Amino acid sequence: MKILVLGAAGMVGRKLTERLARDGELGGKPISEMTLYDVVEPTPPKETPFSVRCETGDLPAAGETDRLVAGKPDVIFHLAAIVSGEAELDFEKGDRINLDGTRNLYESIRKAGNAPRVVFTSSIAVYGAPFPDAIPDDFHLTPLTSYGMQKAIGELLLSDYTRKGFFDGVAIRLPTICVRPGKPNKAASGFFSNIIREPLVGEPAVLPVADDVRHWHASPRSAVGFLIHAATIDGEAIGPRRAIAMPGVSVTVGEQIEALRRAAGDKAVALIRREPDDLILSVVAGWPRNFEPRRALDLGFRTDASFDDIIQVHIEDELGGRIA
Amino acid sequence: MKILVLGAAGMVGRKLTERLARDGELGGKPISEMTLYDVVEPTPPKETPFSVRCETGDLPAAGETDRLVAGKPDVIFHLAAIVSGEAELDFEKGDRINLDGTRNLYESIRKAGNAPRVVFTSSIAVYGAPFPDAIPDDFHLTPLTSYGMQKAIGELLLSDYTRKGFFDGVAIRLPTICVRPGKPNKAASGFFSNIIREPLVGEPAVLPVADDVRHWHASPRSAVGFLIHAATIDGEAIGPRRAIAMPGVSVTVGEQIEALRRAAGDKAVALIRREPDDLILSVVAGWPRNFEPRRALDLGFRTDASFDDIIQVHIEDELGGRIA
Repeated sequence: MKILVLGAAGMVGRKLTERLARDGELGGKPISEMTLYDVVEPTPPKETPFSVRCETGDLPAAGETDRLVAGKPDVIFHLAAIVSGEAELDFEKGDRINLDGTRNLYESIRKAGNAPRVVFTSSIAVYGAPFPDAIPDDFHLTPLTSYGMQKAIGELLLSDYTRKGFFDGVAIRLPTICVRPGKPNKAASGFFSNIIREPLVGEPAVLPVADDVRHWHASPRSAVGFLIHAATIDGEAIGPRRAIAMPGVSVTVGEQIEALRRAAGDKAVALIRREPDDLILSVVAGWPRNFEPRRALDLGFRTDASFDDIIQVHIEDELGGRIA
Repeated sequence: MKILVLGAAGMVGRKLTERLARDGELGGKPISEMTLYDVVEPTPPKETPFSVRCETGDLPAAGETDRLVAGKPDVIFHLAAIVSGEAELDFEKGDRINLDGTRNLYESIRKAGNAPRVVFTSSIAVYGAPFPDAIPDDFHLTPLTSYGMQKAIGELLLSDYTRKGFFDGVAIRLPTICVRPGKPNKAASGFFSNIIREPLVGEPAVLPVADDVRHWHASPRSAVGFLIHAATIDGEAIGPRRAIAMPGVSVTVGEQIEALRRAAGDKAVALIRREPDDLILSVVAGWPRNFEPRRALDLGFRTDASFDDIIQVHIEDELGGRIA
């Protein structure tokens, strides 16, 4: 089985390729080769029982996607994207990568003719406020960012290409990934991870919103699990609606903090400094808080049982099982 | 006020330009010039109080949309599209006109920088079965045809370009237009019009479905009314969801036939020959039957009061007020 991973240098891409290297197989079939692609050089997994090729390039450039699928991979993970904040600030760049890149890829796959499984990472940004308390599977799409619009279009194209038999697509709408490893960044959603990750290593963190802000989370390990499951489930069982909202954990910031207290005690919680930021609060107010992801659960997608589990995943996968 | 009509040679495009020629103004502002564009030469209205230029071309061709918006029209009606059946049979052609053509147009308008009102004709094909009895305004989009996918993408792009201030867009989801003038055609929806139009001139018509099939209709005159209203309403009042399902008349085929009987008597009804066609029945089973178009009604869109009115519009506008 040949696998192509687009966006392999990103956080989820790296964790996916490490998992595939460990497993050596996908859906019971041994992996024979894997191509990792990104705009910056992807890091190959340390040890793999199959050959790995790393490539860099500009996804929407002429001929690029034709070249990438020329070897007719059996499974294509399409994770490549300009992220939300950047797509909003640089409209042309966002459309070029997220729309042209995605459509070029689909067209190249159609022309290659081998109808592979295509797993596309979409986002809960396809939804726009106002929201019900829990968003059902048939909630309408009203993206309120260019990134959300681009992801919604990627989903629509994927469903149509699948219906026409050009490939066998599955789009997964990821929750916010938490705890995100690495350094604090300026993304509006960054604090959800910062207030856990930093105190766990004895560092302070800023909380810019009130404790009653509720949001929808999944661990990086769950995200990889979603991708693997999406690559291997029976396409017929999905039906014509090929975009599926993933399960997650709906918690308030206050509940996140209590889970941190259970994991690392009062001294960790004391490192969280409340600095209300009206701008971030207004942005977050437009985000989904909770879902009823029945289709995903019926299709066998599974996630973390609680926010305590999400913290444990971080401690195991990023901190070698130890906390400060 | 300068107006550009794309798809001006189509049935709705012709009726729109005739109405604009009669009115001489749009939203209280006198029309100074109108450009009519289509893949075949549009027919200019007979008498106009303003200058009319007719042009033909290939919408997605390089530079075409830049040229079309170079004069910075104040209102752009974008009606140009490959229709449903053809877009399904010729995937590349449908995507080229309906996706590339539309996106090129939006990009050219963005670069022109004058932020005009853009009215885009979408369709109830953006919805896919299964449906509730009446489709609410926030029903999810699951197009089950390439045409429906292309229209849904046109809507998403329009909402985002509007949110960013690149233009001021309104997308209207048209019901099936009935009674469609002209000759019977092979479109699966053709019989809805055929069974009225042909008997009214003493000609036979074939009914391929059962009398209890329900569908959603608006007259050509209503469609033009929707376009004019969409061109002139306050954009602020619409909010971020720029695609609006239009009002219509929900009737069964049996109710259509009784309205025909009231308009033209038993001898007209006797010209309808029942020839069940399982293929057409299965296609029609996937179409919307009824809507709750509250947003459109709140925004002041108005349509025919009944199917009797739809027949009267046809008699007045196409038959000079006389029936056979």
